[in-house]
Amino acid sequence: MRCKKCGRKAVTNLRAYRIALCSDCYLDFYKRMVQRSIKKHKIFMEGDEILLAVSGGKDSSAMASVLSNLGYEFDMLYIDLGIGSYSEDSRKKVEELAGIIEKDLHIVELREYGFTIPEVKDRVCSVCGTAKRYIMNRFARENGFTVVATGHTAEDLVSFYLKNIAGGQREYAEKLLPRIEPFDAKLVAKARPLFEVSEKENMLYVIIKGLPFKNEECPFAPKPEWKEIVYDIELKKPGFVKNFVRGLVTEAKKPLETRHCSICGEISSGEICSFCKIRMRLSKK
Amino acid sequence: MRCKKCGRKAVTNLRAYRIALCSDCYLDFYKRMVQRSIKKHKIFMEGDEILLAVSGGKDSSAMASVLSNLGYEFDMLYIDLGIGSYSEDSRKKVEELAGIIEKDLHIVELREYGFTIPEVKDRVCSVCGTAKRYIMNRFARENGFTVVATGHTAEDLVSFYLKNIAGGQREYAEKLLPRIEPFDAKLVAKARPLFEVSEKENMLYVIIKGLPFKNEECPFAPKPEWKEIVYDIELKKPGFVKNFVRGLVTEAKKPLETRHCSICGEISSGEICSFCKIRMRLSKK
Repeated sequence: MRCKKCGRKAVTNLRAYRIALCSDCYLDFYKRMVQRSIKKHKIFMEGDEILLAVSGGKDSSAMASVLSNLGYEFDMLYIDLGIGSYSEDSRKKVEELAGIIEKDLHIVELREYGFTIPEVKDRVCSVCGTAKRYIMNRFARENGFTVVATGHTAEDLVSFYLKNIAGGQREYAEKLLPRIEPFDAKLVAKARPLFEVSEKENMLYVIIKGLPFKNEECPFAPKPEWKEIVYDIELKKPGFVKNFVRGLVTEAKKPLETRHCSICGEISSGEICSFCKIRMRLSKK
Repeated sequence: MRCKKCGRKAVTNLRAYRIALCSDCYLDFYKRMVQRSIKKHKIFMEGDEILLAVSGGKDSSAMASVLSNLGYEFDMLYIDLGIGSYSEDSRKKVEELAGIIEKDLHIVELREYGFTIPEVKDRVCSVCGTAKRYIMNRFARENGFTVVATGHTAEDLVSFYLKNIAGGQREYAEKLLPRIEPFDAKLVAKARPLFEVSEKENMLYVIIKGLPFKNEECPFAPKPEWKEIVYDIELKKPGFVKNFVRGLVTEAKKPLETRHCSICGEISSGEICSFCKIRMRLSKK
């Protein structure tokens, strides 16, 4: 398999884009993809003071590196959840990453608030989510940042969407946008610069770049049932995840002016309605 | 397995509802389910003149029978697409059904418009869809009906939705409602009284009732890829199809008034924010 751009040996075949690429061309492709996404969806704006929430995982590490390459100024925030060696290892990866990309890293420890995640008995993931959102927003605002960027991927958004619609929580599903502006002075904007990038693409990027990242899942993470449903659909319909997430953030086309067919008088979007066009093409009468 | 209502031998175990039922209790369950759906979503209204589009398949046969049992007045329309023995057999089933439920049946033959479906060379399903929508609407309006009801199921709506969002056609996806009012004098309303009923539930209903229906797929129908994706999700998450379709037709809850936590001053939906509640429960400080 050869790189479609330069002809060298390809390292990947992106089914969603039907393109094989070598490692250099892949890095270039990835960078352009993220840049286009940020521009098109106005994910970052003039005057933003950006704080990147990083976990040590492949997605946020890829985000930090590519944004740095694209010339964005930002600081990073790591929230230490106190999950034993999992948190310690993740923290080391993030510190290493900060050194490589030469960005300031802030660390907030959940234990400063009097508890750690392993002490939570019920609904651990829900409590952890609340804690992270609270700390990200408060730290950002108190330290002069105007937007918090997270490494949510296309798979994250699609699986949240399906889960929340099926769970009757359309109000959560509708928050799945590339950027959300604050509706209160206590809030900062939220940005998801990787919202149309897949996990596999992030993984490939961090591996080719040789970036530090922690590959294990959190020991408290449940079986990712909705994610697996999304992976299954992608297997059957390559490109589904990207297409679906793009479809979600695209506004519905305005209906065309109502017209009436000049032949039959029925409703039509043009001079002649679709049915009369078919009839003219096929009718033997 | 025993019927949960009367204790007799059950004929089905509805995973989405976690209930086993005997045949009599199933028919009663099905009828109530459709009635509740029609009431809740205002699918039919006072003064409606209803035309049922029937195909001879299980879904529209179940719709005609249950609406008749529920006391609705309606006529039926069968569109003969001219697909050889497939259309002839389907027509016989519909004629038989009309005799059983004692309703008037109208038949429009596509060949009256100068062609039949087997003569269509390209995009057969798209042409067929355009033809059926055109004929249903025009026949209904010209004959004094105010609403056309179709037997679309929950699986139909969910698979259309996923396909259209992934296809970047949000404007089609947003039309997937239990009832759509006309926006032009040339249009009649569209109703989908089975929008939250599953195909399996319709199948069981027509079998128990001994209703005539044609079980074969149209010979021109492509592999139902999106439907199979929906069946797969339902297998993994019993109840998904119904929950998702209900989620789609449910409006988002309005955000609560913005308040600020009386402890920390951060944004909150109540007197005390979620994070401070967690802290009070867990903090050792």
